[in-house]
Amino acid sequence: MASAKGNAVIGQSGGPTSVINQSLVGVIQEIKKNGLVDQLLGARHGVRGIVNEDFISLKDAPDELLERIAATPAAALGSTRDKPDQAYCEKIFKSFAKHNVRYFFYIGGNDSADTARIVGELAAREGHELKVFHIPKTIDNDLRVHDHTPGYGSAAKFVAAAIMGDNYDNRSLPGIKVDVIMGRHAGFLTAASVLARQHDNDGPHLIYVPEAPLTEEKFLADVDAAYTKHGRCLIAVSEGVSQPDGKTWAEHMATNLEKDSHGNIQLSGTGALGDFMAGLITKKLQAPGGKKLRVRADTFGYLQRSFPGFVSQSDATEARLVGQVAAKSAAEGQPGGSSIAMRRVPGSEYKIETFLAPLSSVARETKHMDPAYISGGNNITDAFKAYAAPLVGPLPTVGTFDEVKK
Amino acid sequence: MASAKGNAVIGQSGGPTSVINQSLVGVIQEIKKNGLVDQLLGARHGVRGIVNEDFISLKDAPDELLERIAATPAAALGSTRDKPDQAYCEKIFKSFAKHNVRYFFYIGGNDSADTARIVGELAAREGHELKVFHIPKTIDNDLRVHDHTPGYGSAAKFVAAAIMGDNYDNRSLPGIKVDVIMGRHAGFLTAASVLARQHDNDGPHLIYVPEAPLTEEKFLADVDAAYTKHGRCLIAVSEGVSQPDGKTWAEHMATNLEKDSHGNIQLSGTGALGDFMAGLITKKLQAPGGKKLRVRADTFGYLQRSFPGFVSQSDATEARLVGQVAAKSAAEGQPGGSSIAMRRVPGSEYKIETFLAPLSSVARETKHMDPAYISGGNNITDAFKAYAAPLVGPLPTVGTFDEVKK
Repeated sequence: MASAKGNAVIGQSGGPTSVINQSLVGVIQEIKKNGLVDQLLGARHGVRGIVNEDFISLKDAPDELLERIAATPAAALGSTRDKPDQAYCEKIFKSFAKHNVRYFFYIGGNDSADTARIVGELAAREGHELKVFHIPKTIDNDLRVHDHTPGYGSAAKFVAAAIMGDNYDNRSLPGIKVDVIMGRHAGFLTAASVLARQHDNDGPHLIYVPEAPLTEEKFLADVDAAYTKHGRCLIAVSEGVSQPDGKTWAEHMATNLEKDSHGNIQLSGTGALGDFMAGLITKKLQAPGGKKLRVRADTFGYLQRSFPGFVSQSDATEARLVGQVAAKSAAEGQPGGSSIAMRRVPGSEYKIETFLAPLSSVARETKHMDPAYISGGNNITDAFKAYAAPLVGPLPTVGTFDEVKK
Repeated sequence: MASAKGNAVIGQSGGPTSVINQSLVGVIQEIKKNGLVDQLLGARHGVRGIVNEDFISLKDAPDELLERIAATPAAALGSTRDKPDQAYCEKIFKSFAKHNVRYFFYIGGNDSADTARIVGELAAREGHELKVFHIPKTIDNDLRVHDHTPGYGSAAKFVAAAIMGDNYDNRSLPGIKVDVIMGRHAGFLTAASVLARQHDNDGPHLIYVPEAPLTEEKFLADVDAAYTKHGRCLIAVSEGVSQPDGKTWAEHMATNLEKDSHGNIQLSGTGALGDFMAGLITKKLQAPGGKKLRVRADTFGYLQRSFPGFVSQSDATEARLVGQVAAKSAAEGQPGGSSIAMRRVPGSEYKIETFLAPLSSVARETKHMDPAYISGGNNITDAFKAYAAPLVGPLPTVGTFDEVKK
């Protein structure tokens, strides 16, 4: 009798986020409640665990532990960078058939959505009943159809707070500071730095996203103008910032440096772009009176996706919600081959509703920033602020003595 | 009548911390209460503001604003890197004499303590009554006599949480990760990464501080052994890590790279050491079966001293306290030329008391880690954990599925 229900597999994939386990726990708790399947199997390290039949049973995990796991950053089941081709997907399907798997919940970005889609189609072709639900996560916020994706709000909160703190640091010891933020193709995370601006004169004074190509000449002119105006300059730049020829700054830099050093210099390290941009400013610009500028660079790195104890509350809640909705949709017999998406309910207050989007509409291609969010190639608009603020939630309360100045 | 009291100047100096304004607000609020002086002048950008007579009046700042400023990272009055020599100190004294300054509160590290000391001695020689109080702050925690310094606990909490999150990231996508932490001469901040270890197998698997010289050979052997044992390796390393010849890794690296590139490569950027160490591992080590290792590096940078909304509560409280004690000591007629220090009250619970330490015992030289805190040149002991844990306070609660494994 019980075995007629079959089993479910859940996995996590791609770069971790701070709330990816909220979605996992949402699925587990909902399935514990609705009794959808006999076994809920957690695949260790995503598709790799499925192929290797490396599963752990999740229905026995006590709620107290699940709540702690939900608050723990990075994939609790382990993640993977494997991007399955057709042959790999067939192995996944074989493992599913062997373990009587009837539901597949896959938490990940657009590559994971595509894997889920292919496996679902294979099962249909083989006549094996399998419902596939994709649960979105990505700090890049670059999934099509989705208004935004779980993981983004918390990473954006980290970036906004970090830039806010660095703005005060830079006010305190004026100079030029370059902060490199994650985002190879989409600028949503870097754009969130705009939320750090609370007073006139606050940084970031310049914001560069991959969607707005940037020449070295414009960059230097921008920095010069901002420094002249503010006596300091805080710059937020996407790691994927590009030049008008479509190549990224990082690609240009790698080419030039390789030539200089006969291939001896490795540029895979993550600090390279920030150091390069800081070096460019030091070389080409001067402080008034010909003085040397104080230029520094930081690359925020993995902290953006994994810093614990500082998540956006609405992001954590929504990440839990999409997991719950996936498990509920399965129990309600909703069509598989779906991604659990969010859209805003029209109205003055921020409110979202979920809906099922066909995987084909989400998979593979990425979403870019709306041009209306970018201004002058070096700034972010109020329209973006209105979009991002409710996803990030309240930022730390701060103050300056400017407020008592007469 | 009122003018008989004279005035006080307060300034902030050196690298900012997340709680440096708690000390500032402690002084302001206490002086508003005790009526010590006619005017409380805030010097903008430390000694530079004193010499330039760039002051703001602080007694008018409303408490609501002061509380917000107390929670704002980085020096609200502005900071400076100026290290005054004798001639500069004489200018400071002249400004004090002109503005009838009778009390000087200086919030800073050991250089600031020394500036305060020299100015105090100059005043004494000139027969100008001036009491000087040094209020400690430094994320490096390297002031002699002081059990610990305000600013350290919050930076240490940031580092411990960051490493905790990165440990989960590294568990989720196994590889080798190098995290570079602030601290040129003292390893206290890097050592705080040990607090991130909550379960067996948790990173940081290797911790390197400036006090324990490290050869490239030992570093590679350590990484190889840790990777073989754990299938991954998380490394916390001080930016000031040194080699047995007394030079830092950064100095060695600069020398070698300059030779390679005929001086074309700038190495002042902050990501360079991490990238160099990651590159070294990639070049010299291999995964089992000759596979390429996944190696990444992050440099935590300024976020360690300026990240808002994530301070250690005991650090914030103590930073406020030492400011209050400075202003109280002044009102009580305690001897100037003092640094407000903390020591632990013996007993099983963590409790501190303050005392006045002569500036000469604090100024100039820095404190290093006790050898009993370091183990095997690559690890930190439980004795250090016991020392640091109460300064950092509770860390985020986390969990893993290892806890349900049979």
